[in-house]
Amino acid sequence: MTQDIYLTGITTTGTPHIGNYVGAIRPGIAASKDPSKQNYYFLADMHALAKAEDPEKIARSTLEIAASWLALGLDTSNAVFYRQSDIPEIPQLTWILTCMTAKGLMNRAHSYKAAVQANEENGSSDPDKGVTMALYSYPILMAADILMFKSTKVPVGRDQKQHVEMARDIAGRFNHHYGETFVLPEAEIDGNTATLAGLDGRKMSKSYNNTIPLFADEKRLRKLIMKIKTNSLEPGEPKDTEGSTLFDIYKAFASNSEVSEVEQLYANGIAWGEMKQKLFEYVNEHIKPAREEYQRLIDDPTVIEQELKKGAERAREFSVPYLEQIRHAVGIRKLG
Amino acid sequence: MTQDIYLTGITTTGTPHIGNYVGAIRPGIAASKDPSKQNYYFLADMHALAKAEDPEKIARSTLEIAASWLALGLDTSNAVFYRQSDIPEIPQLTWILTCMTAKGLMNRAHSYKAAVQANEENGSSDPDKGVTMALYSYPILMAADILMFKSTKVPVGRDQKQHVEMARDIAGRFNHHYGETFVLPEAEIDGNTATLAGLDGRKMSKSYNNTIPLFADEKRLRKLIMKIKTNSLEPGEPKDTEGSTLFDIYKAFASNSEVSEVEQLYANGIAWGEMKQKLFEYVNEHIKPAREEYQRLIDDPTVIEQELKKGAERAREFSVPYLEQIRHAVGIRKLG
Repeated sequence: MTQDIYLTGITTTGTPHIGNYVGAIRPGIAASKDPSKQNYYFLADMHALAKAEDPEKIARSTLEIAASWLALGLDTSNAVFYRQSDIPEIPQLTWILTCMTAKGLMNRAHSYKAAVQANEENGSSDPDKGVTMALYSYPILMAADILMFKSTKVPVGRDQKQHVEMARDIAGRFNHHYGETFVLPEAEIDGNTATLAGLDGRKMSKSYNNTIPLFADEKRLRKLIMKIKTNSLEPGEPKDTEGSTLFDIYKAFASNSEVSEVEQLYANGIAWGEMKQKLFEYVNEHIKPAREEYQRLIDDPTVIEQELKKGAERAREFSVPYLEQIRHAVGIRKLG
Repeated sequence: MTQDIYLTGITTTGTPHIGNYVGAIRPGIAASKDPSKQNYYFLADMHALAKAEDPEKIARSTLEIAASWLALGLDTSNAVFYRQSDIPEIPQLTWILTCMTAKGLMNRAHSYKAAVQANEENGSSDPDKGVTMALYSYPILMAADILMFKSTKVPVGRDQKQHVEMARDIAGRFNHHYGETFVLPEAEIDGNTATLAGLDGRKMSKSYNNTIPLFADEKRLRKLIMKIKTNSLEPGEPKDTEGSTLFDIYKAFASNSEVSEVEQLYANGIAWGEMKQKLFEYVNEHIKPAREEYQRLIDDPTVIEQELKKGAERAREFSVPYLEQIRHAVGIRKLG
């Protein structure tokens, strides 16, 4: 039995919010500490370019996201933590895989099909209107991300399953043509991924503009929590925990016994204002040490840069010789 | 006025034949010696992968083509001569450009459209049948080849003009979005490109299987020239130089006075066998010194490898800092 190799990509757009924390960052960090697992985590900054955002935003987001994961205790002595753009072997592999990818495969990608459908619904005569080649072909870059490190397991949400299937498909075609070279990865879908509601009660998401940034300072955190939507029940009236955003967020952070205690407070008719204050204090206390570390890192990003450089070196210990082997397989060889 | 920068890609498929020599290699080598020009020449081995040929063939072809250009006197002290796959900045730039390329642009590429048309003509229900993503997206890799070295002039045949136009288009979009970064290249179309007929009188081409390899040994060269198609005129009957493959090949190698002399021989009714012997001797004499050098290089390819390594180092003196600048422009930056 060979050890499983886990690969997790971290999108470098936006500022991490407590929904990201509960859904992805916290479980990811827990996994990074498991000495029985070989874990790779990478900042997917080349994917972030596909959105062609403001370069300042891309740079800032990379900084904030790297600082967040490190501040929260990502174990970089166990896991390999690197920036995608620091691994030149990945785009080199991308081209090699591009030669082994049927165009028909990309035609079936969910995100491309969604873009075409949107154009059709808007009555555009060009189904490819506004579609860039990055939106169309990024699954090949993702296949390179995965195959570069012989990942066996890729923890993804259900909507990302297709990316792993495409990587398998491309790897299989390559192996068939050039001989066994790539390991076929498997998607590991966590059906229990926690999602949190945002300020307005809808799913917390950057696109709804309803987020609570994970490392908002105390004042801002308080202000945002005070804005969370509640119903109009008066103090003293018993309240339902179900469908209460305040309760859900509390539950995402608290222990079972603390949750039971709050359930009791709801039954006893705690005032919303009081519950908000309680939630603020609780979350603030929980986040505080990491927030302080986060601020230290943001104030001196050279520490982050060093971590990423170290991670890239470890990653390249694997990717450099492996790419050499892949190049040899396709016929790119030293002469003599 | 800044100096023009010329970029020439050399396809690494097949074995160079005398048609390649006359049409591309000889003028390319002449240009490499011009000290007033900044010239880049590269072995396009990443493009060669798109055809997914036998890896042994890819490797062998790279060796033969590099050996040919060097044996014929490519001036690598003046021109920069490198292997595309030795420049990791090129695939990195390719992804950055992929983010700035409209899918609609690739839809209009001649080679992709030809593949779709062939599928339609064959009655395939899938217009993309047999089309790889490399066939579809290689113009982006070509744009990276060109833009990586701020090439201003790209000498191409008429059928390649679109590639340079696409590079301009992508560069223009990038400059508009991120600020002036790329130089817009121009195609330099040589309308007088010499083409030679092959053994059967059609254009000499690998795909017609009618070629005379440039460095065929004496015995083989003789045998192939003896096979060149002629008409059935008898010795003593005056012969037309027009449409005579023997004459055309002779002319491609000989001086003006030598050509006049052979015109006279044609008028006087030289026997085809005699003309073939004359052509063999002439070409053989012309090729001999380079063929000997070619054989030395093939026998000790480490010399070629050293040349290519030297060329890659010179190329990367430019591409490494320039890619850093491009990365900064899009937001991929060192932290701190």
